[in-house]
Amino acid sequence: MTSFATAKVSAPHRLASLAEERYRDAEQQLGTDWNETVETLLSHRTVRSYLPKAVPESAVRLAVAAAQSAPSSSNLQAWSVVAVEDEARKARLNTVAGTQRQIAQAPLLMIWLADLSRPRSIAADQGSPAEGLDYVESFLLAVIDAALAAQNAVVALESQGLGTCYIGAIRNDPEVVARELELPEGVFPVFGLTVGYPDPAVPAAIKPRLPQTTVLHRERYDDSWQPDDLKHYNTVLRDFQTEQGMPLLDWTEQVRNRIGTVAALKGRHLLGAAAQRLGFKLK
Amino acid sequence: MTSFATAKVSAPHRLASLAEERYRDAEQQLGTDWNETVETLLSHRTVRSYLPKAVPESAVRLAVAAAQSAPSSSNLQAWSVVAVEDEARKARLNTVAGTQRQIAQAPLLMIWLADLSRPRSIAADQGSPAEGLDYVESFLLAVIDAALAAQNAVVALESQGLGTCYIGAIRNDPEVVARELELPEGVFPVFGLTVGYPDPAVPAAIKPRLPQTTVLHRERYDDSWQPDDLKHYNTVLRDFQTEQGMPLLDWTEQVRNRIGTVAALKGRHLLGAAAQRLGFKLK
Repeated sequence: MTSFATAKVSAPHRLASLAEERYRDAEQQLGTDWNETVETLLSHRTVRSYLPKAVPESAVRLAVAAAQSAPSSSNLQAWSVVAVEDEARKARLNTVAGTQRQIAQAPLLMIWLADLSRPRSIAADQGSPAEGLDYVESFLLAVIDAALAAQNAVVALESQGLGTCYIGAIRNDPEVVARELELPEGVFPVFGLTVGYPDPAVPAAIKPRLPQTTVLHRERYDDSWQPDDLKHYNTVLRDFQTEQGMPLLDWTEQVRNRIGTVAALKGRHLLGAAAQRLGFKLK
Repeated sequence: MTSFATAKVSAPHRLASLAEERYRDAEQQLGTDWNETVETLLSHRTVRSYLPKAVPESAVRLAVAAAQSAPSSSNLQAWSVVAVEDEARKARLNTVAGTQRQIAQAPLLMIWLADLSRPRSIAADQGSPAEGLDYVESFLLAVIDAALAAQNAVVALESQGLGTCYIGAIRNDPEVVARELELPEGVFPVFGLTVGYPDPAVPAAIKPRLPQTTVLHRERYDDSWQPDDLKHYNTVLRDFQTEQGMPLLDWTEQVRNRIGTVAALKGRHLLGAAAQRLGFKLK
């Protein structure tokens, strides 16, 4: 961020440039209200190649403070995080995720948890009921709390020059993760997050996203833009794939491949049953 | 943020001050790596009182660009957002949330949506299967995508001087929200977000959170700190309640009240069934 820290005069230019990278559409204007935080947010890119350099303890603590500063439903703070640095443990967790290179390489793997064990034990201490925890709603509440917290941590880490990559694949087998991390009943691993210093030899690019008109609706849901937007986005993504030397594949085709079959879920079709065995009744 | 923008020399002091407000514990150190983004994140407070001043269109677009810059699982981008400014529509949505003052007062209510309608229609266009969408996993994926996106929007809005408050209470009756916003099958309202310029006459405070030792675990889940941490936090929160002129109530007691009964869920015990009727099979 430092290179732009004192460059407020170029704010309109920076926002135009960030909009161009994110949307590849000269018509997508983002105004002139640039600031360093917006720069951090819009500059996000997934980092999968890391230097062999530990994440400083102060960066972890600052990230967790940012995570705890995120909103929490009814202030229940229904989440926890486990910071894993031990190589052997990281390797065992990696088997759940299909052995991904970025997990092996990252000096730090954070496992973000939906945590209803804490409120349950608080109730049990006084022999109080905890009926509310048995519903889909409470599972959802804890998952959302964990996601809001994790995203604040990501932003804090990136603002400090670190790179991250969410690992949804730990949900391929949440029970193995639970055993490895000795999770008590009522705690569910939502996703992992690899953290480390980006390897400058493998620069990561800003990934273009769908046009705003696809995701931002006014007053009511309106998908009338969708056909044109999807055609445009397929073109944008193919340009990006060409630039990055990636295989060429329409986004709409990627989506169809990802959602078409149970096999593409890589075990996650069993997630509901696994959550129940981990103590979430999902009534 | 402007008051600290050029004050990097005071970075250690700022982090110590923000740590003190968030944890009320002189032993909670956050290092010296201050930057404007961290300042924005750690300064978060829930804003429930707004000036009668519209949110600029450029701020909405910047917030949505930040939201779209958040990571998305397999780049599915399985979320949407509806921006509601129409007073009559906002009032009707407010009845679902139990008629909250901040919803009535906020010039903008954003409803964040888990959106599996888009991938489903992409599959249907080619007569392709969409079996993967029928599982708890896909509901979770879309909810997480929406939450990560929304939190980035919150940070972007706060960096521009706007205030926000998440409204989980729209889940009290997701089907009424779905009808009001004309949501297609496979779209679920995850939470609302009120947005507006904070009323300076009603200053909002930084809410203290649990000690880091409660939520941050090393290598494996460890709740041995919890009994001492909860005692400490009850004291911290009572001090905060006293300062704010709020009723005094231990956090542990707040938790017990919130989770104890089905009645305290205010209708959300029916959420699983509602999600199914909205097109999520939750297999």
